[in-house]
Order: sequence, then structure tokens, then C-alpha cells
Amino acid sequence: MTRSPPLLHFDHNASTPVDAAVLQEMLPFLAERSGNPSSTHSVGREARVAVDRARARVAGVVAARPDQVVLTAGGTEANNLAVLGAAREAASRGRHVLVSAVEHASVLGPCSRLREEGFEVEVVPVGRDGRVDPRRVAGAVRRDTTLVCVMAANNETGALQPVLEILRLLPSGVLLHCDATQVPGKVPLGEIVRKPHLLSLSSHKVHGPKGAGALVVRTPARPQPLLFGGGQEHGLRPGTENVPALVGFGAALERAAARTDEYVRTVGARTRALLAHLLDGIPGSRLLGPEDPASRLPNTFALSFPVRDGRALVPALDLAGILASSGSACASGAPEPSHVLAGMGVSREEASRTVRFSLGREVEEWDAEEAARRIRRALDPLLVAHGRQI
Amino acid sequence: MTRSPPLLHFDHNASTPVDAAVLQEMLPFLAERSGNPSSTHSVGREARVAVDRARARVAGVVAARPDQVVLTAGGTEANNLAVLGAAREAASRGRHVLVSAVEHASVLGPCSRLREEGFEVEVVPVGRDGRVDPRRVAGAVRRDTTLVCVMAANNETGALQPVLEILRLLPSGVLLHCDATQVPGKVPLGEIVRKPHLLSLSSHKVHGPKGAGALVVRTPARPQPLLFGGGQEHGLRPGTENVPALVGFGAALERAAARTDEYVRTVGARTRALLAHLLDGIPGSRLLGPEDPASRLPNTFALSFPVRDGRALVPALDLAGILASSGSACASGAPEPSHVLAGMGVSREEASRTVRFSLGREVEEWDAEEAARRIRRALDPLLVAHGRQI
Repeated sequence: MTRSPPLLHFDHNASTPVDAAVLQEMLPFLAERSGNPSSTHSVGREARVAVDRARARVAGVVAARPDQVVLTAGGTEANNLAVLGAAREAASRGRHVLVSAVEHASVLGPCSRLREEGFEVEVVPVGRDGRVDPRRVAGAVRRDTTLVCVMAANNETGALQPVLEILRLLPSGVLLHCDATQVPGKVPLGEIVRKPHLLSLSSHKVHGPKGAGALVVRTPARPQPLLFGGGQEHGLRPGTENVPALVGFGAALERAAARTDEYVRTVGARTRALLAHLLDGIPGSRLLGPEDPASRLPNTFALSFPVRDGRALVPALDLAGILASSGSACASGAPEPSHVLAGMGVSREEASRTVRFSLGREVEEWDAEEAARRIRRALDPLLVAHGRQI
Repeated sequence: MTRSPPLLHFDHNASTPVDAAVLQEMLPFLAERSGNPSSTHSVGREARVAVDRARARVAGVVAARPDQVVLTAGGTEANNLAVLGAAREAASRGRHVLVSAVEHASVLGPCSRLREEGFEVEVVPVGRDGRVDPRRVAGAVRRDTTLVCVMAANNETGALQPVLEILRLLPSGVLLHCDATQVPGKVPLGEIVRKPHLLSLSSHKVHGPKGAGALVVRTPARPQPLLFGGGQEHGLRPGTENVPALVGFGAALERAAARTDEYVRTVGARTRALLAHLLDGIPGSRLLGPEDPASRLPNTFALSFPVRDGRALVPALDLAGILASSGSACASGAPEPSHVLAGMGVSREEASRTVRFSLGREVEEWDAEEAARRIRRALDPLLVAHGRQI
């Protein structure tokens, strides 16, 4: 009887397991501490204190004031609130919005909606490496531009975007929204989370629970709410606060940020080693996205493989106990190739045989050379041009 | 040393503790089963199966097809999606919306927003008992009326609304939205959850976790989405599904519905007994809302007390280990008196000295006469006209 090899979870950009320590903080609020933060009695106030603490922890990580943090049900809601809320609020001053070609569906979706509402949304292309050119963004700004949306790091290629350079080139009064859901814990958080006027965060990308996120709103941004009801979240996001999820989010974000150095060192090294072994061991495989590791998230790379039918890649890896993603998880199921790869000039055909690997903290559990060998073995029956073996 | 008496949790309409059995079903999805349902690998599919099962359980309780269930982050989001989404979708046919005066803030808030968008929202008054007259609703319907919003049961008074009578009187083509967040597990769910075109449900009101809810959408309703992004929830609610919360919601809703008969019998009897003891023991106290228990939720009543300063009521009860609510939890913190009581013709002054008691399943843990005595003792220093002692 053979022991099955350990699961290789290389799909952390889709979702991450909840930290055991984070879950411990959440559990009381899933059981006896069941108050509604809007209730004025002791059990309600206990829940209110917990939400306030979570808010303060999020604020601490991004160097914001707690009243600048709008807690949401996730990154998608934060992105919607930022894009729809800010563009609509500024509509009397202008209706021109700039958005990078590689934004997440939860930014591009609201942009399509803005078009239906009469806004002009201009898509700023990216280079072959998937990065936006700050001068192209600045050059596209018009007198009626009110909002620019550029993410901190792309979920599919890991490409880090020059958000701060863009900010420096933007005229004052133009708001910058930055979808930063993929960066906490993966890169040192400096000005990139302090400077954007609107910053989106997600809990389940940083080993927190699903169902929580935040939009950080800084002057002069003042998005209109999308939902209406109780006055929760400064009137920007009504509904009983999801106390346990927000408690977990605050704890997870703080932990992730505090361990960034270690993550960059360990996950970064192992990711580069795995990539090198794969490129070397599977001739015809090609890295899509920035060549320079310093321009990518330390845990992420997208590789195209020389196979005839790309649809078999993720299932073949899955059968071998290796989790990975074809295109972004949010777009999977759809037959369309990734808009991120298309935006980089990758052909439809090559995009269809591309796999995104996004590694996680558990790098001690596996060896890069052995993992590359497992991947090669899993894909071997699919590879067109058999070359060097790892 | 005296043992402190057990906590009397009489604020279940604000939020309920998560059932132990429900939490057990959730826990795996808060730990190792961390997949994103949009991921196509095994761990993602496992999450997808869990969400589909939760959806099927919700659908089962309301006798809907699973594809008629839109899973949301809670009741507030469901109400917003129903009101804003349905009214906007029908805007080309008409812009007249009818809404009862006692709806929750998460229905009235979207209605205010609709007014800003040029809709005409007409508020249908309620009687002194807090109930809507079906003929008044039907009489207010115009050719350009597209949507009528009447809740199943009011959260503050427990008043059951004649939703089915209203439905029978509505011309075909006019949609009925019913906020049913307060009814599952409390009243037998018959046609009231099967007939409305749009039905809102909430998880944390039925001993499920916070952060989950649903909008059940039946033909011909077809609300526009409020948020945009991934294609989740038939395109009506994007964002990574909150798998553990939805798993808990499905389990909790099913359990609550299955135990309704026992709940009606036990909680109903204890609630009526507590109310009788309070009315008898505190002269000058007055029941607000329907007199007939059959017209109220079995667990809910609102009582005004003869005190000078109503603001002291909830804190005094709280100090005595009794959780209750002044007005609805969602509106608390606001100095305004409850719009529900105002709508019933209750004076501002009397509303300010009103307490909502909403009991829960744990009726075996306390005795009605003893609970009434504790309440009387807690309020005694505040009562203006001291009368009969319990």
C-alpha cells in the first residue's frame, strides 16, 4: 500500500484556509457571544466592542483612522462600493473613469454598469508583462476624469502595479481606487496601502474567514452607499455586522501583515525555485507576466504548458493532489479565456493552456524539486513535445 | 455568596445564538475545507457542493426551486436587492411603489433611495394594532404600481401581516415583496413563503450564523443586481460565497422550520404567560400591537411601562440580567422613536418608554412568574405609579 503524497495547495490566491489562531478568536462569537452590535444591552455592547476592535486592527495595518474603515462582506462588495459609489458621487463633476485592463471582475463589472448609466469608462492597456505604464494612465486623464482604478497586484499573474507612481502623476481631485486584496502578508505594506483614496481588502485571501472585507476611504473620497437600511458602517454598509467573520478578518490581517518578512523570504524563495524547476523540466513552458520576481507577488506565477488541450491541465494536477487554477477562480466555469492574459497579448490558444500557481505559507511541507517532478509527472501524458525530464 | 440568576435572553428578534449542531456543520468549512466554490479542482468542488446543499435546504423550506434562491450576506442585502432591484427593473412599466409603514429600515431605506431616483413611493398606514389593512393596500394600487412591500411579521410588535390576503387582491403583474426574516421557526410556513414573488430570509434570526441570508425570486420577478463581478448567484450577487455561513444558514433554517410546532407550543405559551404576569403585576403597562395572540409572532410583544424616563428601561433590565430591546435593534443608538410605534399612532412619549420582548427556545430554563417578578424588581425604582406587586 502506497501512502498518498501530501496535497500541494498552489491555489492560495483563490482562497486560503483560516488560521487556527484566527478561528479560536472567532469561535466565541459563533456560540454564546451572539449579540447584535446594535443592541444596547451588555451582550450587544460586547459584540460592538468586538467589531470596533476588528476595525481598529484593520485600520492599524493600513495606517488609517478607524472611521476610515468600512467593513464589508468581502472584497467584491468593497470594490463595488468604491467604483460605483465614488463614480456616482462625483458624477456632477465628471463622468470619465479610467481602469486598467487587468482589474478583477468585481472592478470591471461595476465599470460596465457605469457605462450603462452614461459614464465613459476607458480601459488602460497593460504591457506584455501585465503591468500598467503610469504615464499611459496619467496621459489618459481628462478634465472630467474623476476616478482611476488600478489594483496593487494582479491575482492571475502576480504582477505588481505601479500604484504609487500613478498616484504621483494624478492631478489632485482625481481619486485612485486600489484593489489591494492580494497584497497583505505577501509584500511589505508601505505607502501602497496608505496613499490610495479607496483601498479594498479581503479576509479570505489572508487566512481569515470568507464573508469579510473592507473598503478604506480617505479624503476626499466619499462614496455613495449601494445598500440602504440601518446606519451601520457610517451609513455606507447597512445590515447586522457579521461579528465572527469581522473578528477573524481583523485577526488574520494583523497576523499576515506582521509575518510578511518571513513570508517573502520563505514563500518567495520556494516559489522561485519551483518556477525554475518547471521552466527547466518542461521545455516549451513559458512564464506569463513579469520576468523580474521583484515585479511579481512572491507566491504567484502563471505558466503556459505545451499541451494540446488546456482544459485537461487543472484536472490532471488535481488528480495528482496539486491544486492550481486556470485563469482566475472567479472567472472559472466560464469558457472565455482570462481577460488578464488577453490584455497582455497572450493568444486565446496559449491562454487556454495556462495555469496559475499561487503558493502559500506551508512551504516547509514540500520540496521544490520534488513538487516540480510531481507536476511534470501529472502533466506528462498531456505534453506535446516531451523534453528534458526533471 | 449569592448565585446570580440565569440570563434571560428576551431579545431574540435582534439576533439568536448559533445552534450547536449548526456550528458543527460549519466548522469543517472554517478549517481545512477552505475551497473557493469557483475553483474547479476537488477542494473547490467540495465547497461548491456545500453551497449547493445549503441552497437546496433553503429552497426546500420555502418550497422553491434551488435556482430561485439567491444567497446573500444577510436579510438587509436581500431586502435591498428585492426593493431596488425589482423597482428599477420594472421602471419602464411604472414608477409607483407601495410600502407598509412598519417595514424594516432595510426596506424603507431602499424606498427612500428610489424616491431620489424619481420613483413615487407611497406609504400604506397601519392600524393601531400595527397591522396593514389589505383593502387599503389594494385600493392604493395604480396602473403604474409595480411593487408592493409588506413584511410577514413585524420585528418590534410581532404583528403578523395579511400578506396572502394582499396577494389575492393584487392585480397580476404587480410584484409582492415580503420580508420574512422574522417568521421561520416561529409560525408554520405555508403559502406565506410560497406565494410572494420576492421573499427575504435571514440566517442569524433562526439560530444560524450572521452574514447569510437569501432572496427567493419567483416568476415574474427578475430584480436587477446591485453588485457586479463574478457570475455567482445567477449573476445576482457576485463575490466568493461565504461557504461556512451559508452551510450554517441552510442547516439552521431547516432545523427551525422542522421544530416550528414545538416552538409555537412551548415558546408561545410561555410568552403569553409572561405577558399576562407583566400586565397584571405592573399597572399602567400597556401592550402595543395586536391584542389577539394569534395575530402576533408567538415569541414577541411590545409593552409600554409607566416610567418617567424610558431611556433607563433597557439598562435597568440589562443590569438585572434581562436582555430586551427599545425599539428595533437596528434603529437603536438613534434618538428617534421607533417608526413602527409612531406608525401605530403611539405617542412619541409612550414610544420612548416601550420595551420589546422577544423570547427564544430556552423557555425550559425559566419560569414565567419568576421572570415577571425579576422584570418588575428591575423596573421598580423607575415606575411612576406603584401598584400591585407580582
